[in-house]
Amino acid sequence: MAESKDGRKTSGPLERVRASFEKQGLMQLLGAEVVEAGEGRCVIEVPFREELTQQERYFHGAVTGAIAHNAGGYAALTLAPPDREVLTVEYKVNFLAPAWGEKLVAHGEVLSAGRRLFVCRAEVEAVDGNERRTCATLLQTVTLSPVKVGE
Amino acid sequence: MAESKDGRKTSGPLERVRASFEKQGLMQLLGAEVVEAGEGRCVIEVPFREELTQQERYFHGAVTGAIAHNAGGYAALTLAPPDREVLTVEYKVNFLAPAWGEKLVAHGEVLSAGRRLFVCRAEVEAVDGNERRTCATLLQTVTLSPVKVGE
Amino acid sequence: MAESKDGRKTSGPLERVRASFEKQGLMQLLGAEVVEAGEGRCVIEVPFREELTQQERYFHGAVTGAIAHNAGGYAALTLAPPDREVLTVEYKVNFLAPAWGEKLVAHGEVLSAGRRLFVCRAEVEAVDGNERRTCATLLQTVTLSPVKVGE
Amino acid sequence: MAESKDGRKTSGPLERVRASFEKQGLMQLLGAEVVEAGEGRCVIEVPFREELTQQERYFHGAVTGAIAHNAGGYAALTLAPPDREVLTVEYKVNFLAPAWGEKLVAHGEVLSAGRRLFVCRAEVEAVDGNERRTCATLLQTVTLSPVKVGE
Repeated sequence: MAESKDGRKTSGPLERVRASFEKQGLMQLLGAEVVEAGEGRCVIEVPFREELTQQERYFHGAVTGAIAHNAGGYAALTLAPPDREVLTVEYKVNFLAPAWGEKLVAHGEVLSAGRRLFVCRAEVEAVDGNERRTCATLLQTVTLSPVKVGE
Repeated sequence: MAESKDGRKTSGPLERVRASFEKQGLMQLLGAEVVEAGEGRCVIEVPFREELTQQERYFHGAVTGAIAHNAGGYAALTLAPPDREVLTVEYKVNFLAPAWGEKLVAHGEVLSAGRRLFVCRAEVEAVDGNERRTCATLLQTVTLSPVKVGE
Repeated sequence: MAESKDGRKTSGPLERVRASFEKQGLMQLLGAEVVEAGEGRCVIEVPFREELTQQERYFHGAVTGAIAHNAGGYAALTLAPPDREVLTVEYKVNFLAPAWGEKLVAHGEVLSAGRRLFVCRAEVEAVDGNERRTCATLLQTVTLSPVKVGE
Repeated sequence: MAESKDGRKTSGPLERVRASFEKQGLMQLLGAEVVEAGEGRCVIEVPFREELTQQERYFHGAVTGAIAHNAGGYAALTLAPPDREVLTVEYKVNFLAPAWGEKLVAHGEVLSAGRRLFVCRAEVEAVDGNERRTCATLLQTVTLSPVKVGE
């Protein structure tokens, strides 16, 4: 826990990301986990399960896309004002290699942080024993979510 | 069931799509379903559940992305040679409105079919009672999967 | 010329788009022209010249991209507050067919207009005599440009 | 000049890229130049001129896009079989900062090279005196162009 300039208690980047992540039903369903987060970066992992596959038993591209765009979005959250959330405006993902292995690891980072818009990148690695292979790359635009009525 | 020019039995587009879809563990996990498929198009639905949400109880963007890119990919499959599968090369998705409601419906269609590459679009609607609202649009490149050794 | 609610003179969409377009050195260099604009849409054309080609004498993809993303951006400008300009945040373009013919025509439209962000689409047609062929499709995010100091 | 495994004369990556680049009318019109090329990478520059601007006298985003997607495409060409050309399937570009300065420099690289598809990235820097600022990032899919009849 840290104290921000205006005296409010704020948590560190990892606690902040986890507090939001834990409210995402989908991440629980996929079995994904935030393993690291710092200023402008976030790492999310998901272990292999049959329920996460496409028709040839690789990880489904939608799982790759899910953790990649969450890793990018949460990287942006670590740089957002303490009282604001973020929303993904759009993303593009290129699949580079079959997503095969015991887990996927998505490394998200902020490339550029503006007043309201963040541009983020994420790389997804498929890890199998000692082998690590980049299987996807994502480029994403994130915005601060609107301030809610009453705030 | 129909017979192709070379005398092999082939199924119609809907049966073909469903045969592949049913092998995707992830689609079962999400509770998604193929509700229509024809030449160059495919419609996929997913009903709301708590397990599919992001931190504010809307459908998670990754669910929207998942059914959109599957609807596009399966639209392409309906135009692929009978003995070939398809792979998503890349996609981009823009989120247009909060994905709120009792179900999401993704309408995929092929914009352009080349010898090896397909360009597809998908629109995702959030349906709530009588209201339908477009909540995302996707643009995607799909390729025929490599012919396997032994084929 | 029309009068806005606050009594300031405002021009129609076509005049507004042309006033900005004429200040773009690049559009003059390419020989591009705004041929239509209305609420949420804009059409830009560019006639063929050797100087606009790639190595096989088709229109260069960058020309296609240029008029597509300008058609999308100017479609958004027609919906922006009268005292604001717009900026392209990002775009994606898929090339569907060779861009061959006497001119290219880009049709831009706004898919979704938020308080600060617009999502736009553009289709580019290659026109050759009586033939019209869609050669590219673009999906784009546009934002209001920052208010300048002194405004 | 080098000799390939099958005894045919082949030129180095820089000569190969320049031979194609010089046939692109558009690159001459923009005043762009290939300044470096190696296995899987290519650097293209364009100096500032009034004719390359948008309405606020920055480099037009279409110029940024043009040299970024050419740098990516030519990075792929350096890895293509000696008798084949390449085509851009699609690209996405995010604008990170205003493109202001005496020149733009696009650094293209191949992230992944398959049998027929390449995934490329390009970063564009705006250079002004001693200052260098990344103003755009591009993610792109490139394919081998079809073999022509008679080849």
